[in-house]
Amino acid sequence: MIRVIIIGAGNVAFHLTEALLNLPEVEVKQVYNRNIEKIRYLENKTSITNNIAQIMDADLFIIAISDDQIEAFSRHLETKNGLVVHTSGSVPMAVLKAKNKGVFYPLQSFSKAKKVSFKNIPFCLEASTEAHYNLLFSIASKLSERCYPINSSQRKSLHVAAVFVNNFTNHMYTIGNTICENNAVPFEILHPLIHETTAKIMTIAPKDAQTGPARRNDEKTMQAHLDLLANNQKTVYKTISHSIIKTYE
Amino acid sequence: MIRVIIIGAGNVAFHLTEALLNLPEVEVKQVYNRNIEKIRYLENKTSITNNIAQIMDADLFIIAISDDQIEAFSRHLETKNGLVVHTSGSVPMAVLKAKNKGVFYPLQSFSKAKKVSFKNIPFCLEASTEAHYNLLFSIASKLSERCYPINSSQRKSLHVAAVFVNNFTNHMYTIGNTICENNAVPFEILHPLIHETTAKIMTIAPKDAQTGPARRNDEKTMQAHLDLLANNQKTVYKTISHSIIKTYE
Repeated sequence: MIRVIIIGAGNVAFHLTEALLNLPEVEVKQVYNRNIEKIRYLENKTSITNNIAQIMDADLFIIAISDDQIEAFSRHLETKNGLVVHTSGSVPMAVLKAKNKGVFYPLQSFSKAKKVSFKNIPFCLEASTEAHYNLLFSIASKLSERCYPINSSQRKSLHVAAVFVNNFTNHMYTIGNTICENNAVPFEILHPLIHETTAKIMTIAPKDAQTGPARRNDEKTMQAHLDLLANNQKTVYKTISHSIIKTYE
Repeated sequence: MIRVIIIGAGNVAFHLTEALLNLPEVEVKQVYNRNIEKIRYLENKTSITNNIAQIMDADLFIIAISDDQIEAFSRHLETKNGLVVHTSGSVPMAVLKAKNKGVFYPLQSFSKAKKVSFKNIPFCLEASTEAHYNLLFSIASKLSERCYPINSSQRKSLHVAAVFVNNFTNHMYTIGNTICENNAVPFEILHPLIHETTAKIMTIAPKDAQTGPARRNDEKTMQAHLDLLANNQKTVYKTISHSIIKTYE
């Protein structure tokens, strides 16, 4: 039985706690959060505390709090013998002030409202010893079918790549939606195309899937599009079109 | 029985011909293409020609050729009494030189290699009379469950919106993929996140689904990301981040 303590009550902490409580191989020994009210709902399932001095001993401490507080918080666990990990995509393992460190990063965007199945969520794992890596793998592999050894430098790049494929893609949808709204066109007309775009790159490299006026360097169409756009949208249109043209030069 | 003649042998023409040949309510009377070899495979299914003078009479002529050739080609059909339509997202109906005009635009990106089911592909329909609109609707609604009346000005905006949600999104995937490759990270780690990003906006507005450093105006993370990127990627990162920040100001 692996004894785990979870630090935090944000989106990642919330879903991880839920999932780990359901793993027979894991004992969620305690959940810590600065504001106890946010973890009050766990009272009957595990020990809860908002007092750092009362954090127990465990095999694994999962710090699932804001990126900029990870380092500071880890100092409170400096004397612990268990493995101390964070769950962040953008924070190096080395910032952890602990005897034994690691990273347990589920690569997905979570919201509390939406139920999460970890089964298909990739876990990026890192630890300084093989034994600790194996400990993380033994838990992650019970939650998910996709576990990868990813070091801090790789994880940093992955996080940037995720900004492009997730955050920036979502902004493309926002602009598309705005254009539709401004012209009384239902955005749902674009749903199948959005599906298709995404489905395509699961089987062929996105570079080979590129279509559109910038790919063809079709200046006439690009100019016609620019004429229709608001200023802010124009800049985005120009920059991405330019980047596409450069990519295929 | 609606008698249809199809002009062209590109991706849209190819898939439309296939689908219309299977509709019992439609007779594909003839297929025209400038290069006869490309439509030779249809020889046993319909009449084929590369001779404009031999184009027959029909209820509906579907011009599915390059955008910039639609207007010129339509002049050859000027004397026809049937309805003349094109299948383009970016060309106004008015460019057609024909007695009776319309647009029959399936909003999807096609490639010959990939089998197409029209069932979920939106058809954007336009005609100058109600009777002609009904003719287009009667065919489109047998191919697809999603038929919309979309006028030329709406279609123009839709086409620009499609560039954002399809072409530009695909370029975000390309950049993400490049970053992964450069750091020996398998791009497939990002597949579930890509799925999730797309699935989310089918139920909530993309504007409300936005996350990431630009949404939080988290300058430290954005700077760290910029430091990792190649020049071309930097410009894209900055422009889109700026647009996200502006959107939520």
